[in-house]
Amino acid sequence: MTNQPMPTLHNILAARPHVYRHLKPTPLFPYAGLSQLIGAEVWVKHENHQPTGAFKVRGGLNLAAHLTPEERRGGLFTASTGNHGQSVAYAAKVSGIRATIAVPEGANPGKVAAMRGLGAEVIFHGADFDTAREWIAAEAEEHGGRFVGPTEELLIAGVGTYGLEIVEELPDVEVIIVPVGAGSGACGTSIAAKSINPNIQVIAAQSAQAPAMQRSWQSGQLVSAEMRTFAEGVATRVPFANTQRIMRHYLDDFVLVDDSDIKQAIRLHLEHTHNLAEGAGAVSLAAALQLKDRLAGKKVVLVLSGGNLSTANLRSILQNS
Amino acid sequence: MTNQPMPTLHNILAARPHVYRHLKPTPLFPYAGLSQLIGAEVWVKHENHQPTGAFKVRGGLNLAAHLTPEERRGGLFTASTGNHGQSVAYAAKVSGIRATIAVPEGANPGKVAAMRGLGAEVIFHGADFDTAREWIAAEAEEHGGRFVGPTEELLIAGVGTYGLEIVEELPDVEVIIVPVGAGSGACGTSIAAKSINPNIQVIAAQSAQAPAMQRSWQSGQLVSAEMRTFAEGVATRVPFANTQRIMRHYLDDFVLVDDSDIKQAIRLHLEHTHNLAEGAGAVSLAAALQLKDRLAGKKVVLVLSGGNLSTANLRSILQNS
Repeated sequence: MTNQPMPTLHNILAARPHVYRHLKPTPLFPYAGLSQLIGAEVWVKHENHQPTGAFKVRGGLNLAAHLTPEERRGGLFTASTGNHGQSVAYAAKVSGIRATIAVPEGANPGKVAAMRGLGAEVIFHGADFDTAREWIAAEAEEHGGRFVGPTEELLIAGVGTYGLEIVEELPDVEVIIVPVGAGSGACGTSIAAKSINPNIQVIAAQSAQAPAMQRSWQSGQLVSAEMRTFAEGVATRVPFANTQRIMRHYLDDFVLVDDSDIKQAIRLHLEHTHNLAEGAGAVSLAAALQLKDRLAGKKVVLVLSGGNLSTANLRSILQNS
Repeated sequence: MTNQPMPTLHNILAARPHVYRHLKPTPLFPYAGLSQLIGAEVWVKHENHQPTGAFKVRGGLNLAAHLTPEERRGGLFTASTGNHGQSVAYAAKVSGIRATIAVPEGANPGKVAAMRGLGAEVIFHGADFDTAREWIAAEAEEHGGRFVGPTEELLIAGVGTYGLEIVEELPDVEVIIVPVGAGSGACGTSIAAKSINPNIQVIAAQSAQAPAMQRSWQSGQLVSAEMRTFAEGVATRVPFANTQRIMRHYLDDFVLVDDSDIKQAIRLHLEHTHNLAEGAGAVSLAAALQLKDRLAGKKVVLVLSGGNLSTANLRSILQNS
């Protein structure tokens, strides 16, 4: 792994003006129903209330603010299962530059429509995120554009602003549970929380049906793994070295939750918070239910990272309950 | 009808410190998918992002800030199908006073649980809102408490703060569509919008299966009507004189939308905004689809007044599409 310095709280503070030029802090609400269910004081950080429905837009805005004139002219190129792409499309739109986004075949149609609605060019390519990513990186080079990797440090610093919002608004938070796809959210959150108060436990969670990041974190090696989760926001097959390094330094634990428990968590969010969570967004609640004993009586924040669940998935999840 | 002076923009401005002591402004987002569907520039005012999931909490906070010491000691008494009750319960909790709330039999269980989660005493009484209301008003008097009617001026001024937020954030808004239950939201919105810019069209909407307020507005007479809508937030059987008077002064139009179109609008919100709207919350979108021709090319704000749809209703709405 690399020897570059890791991003710090300084980078998150520096990202704030770029993020808050376009966005407002998201709500952090306590929920009596979830608290009763888990036996803890449960708060939800509503990143699903972003204009794009997910936390990643914070990172895109920070990245777009740091482009050179050449990069602005060449435009942004990236690959995404949806939320990162919406982030890049949103940042490009408000910055007046072009965005080209490769998505895997079968990508969430609502997310694709949202990217196009933001003015991005969306191209379907390959069976999964990693295939789309390799292809679009080559396209970017060919067209003199700026390829945006999903775990760039400017993205981590940008998304870390929600971690900072949590600790500023609820200074006595004891546990934060955050989902992991490529890891930028878990990195940003843990850098913010641990730099301010090392006693805050930050626990990451991922689908057991896509465990590459969790296995890499546990073993200290970069290991790929099978990927067959329905939750595209955490559907990582090939791990990322830079976010692994940060997570090994900062995270207290990293757990896996079964897709069936993620679906149950989506139903519980609808019932108790009246929010639509996508799979990745419900991972934190699924993990909290699994970790009930460890959380008992504690002040816990669940990051509801995104709400962009397709209607087809929602219908099937409600039918099979 | 009464000759009392109507509330004005002054009352809304005066409510702001009481509202923002506990709440933040809610998001106002544009949605490309809805804009395409309606053929207008469509924005959504996210009152479903309130801690109680609905706009009414703004009014409760303004009312609680104006109680006498005697009223604080006696506690608050009210009747509600859910959102007004959550508002009173929330305001009572943050103000350190007791709340007793009568709900009709069969009330939305999620809303009842939320009121209890906020510490309120909830009592089931009668078949509909109006029956529960008469009973609890007598209870309040017997116990020396403060009965809170659903259309008190302090409530109208408090909820009017979201109307002001709309016009401040999007000064060139041309049309605002707002649902009507008892009418406090439509009154607050139209007072704010029309006082600032009389050219803004404010259009109210209600379920065709509960048309009492719309028929009263059209006829200039207070007429009760049948009430059989599934959308408890707009399920008014007996009209309210004070909100009628304000609406007759300020509203540009008042339309009815069928329950089946409200259900379709709930599905469209899930698909295009990824937000759970309750029936009352989706009325504005249903009305916009009905008024497409009038709205063509305009800048339109739809008030998504609340998101507290029960899981049972959601399941049935998704199954029957």
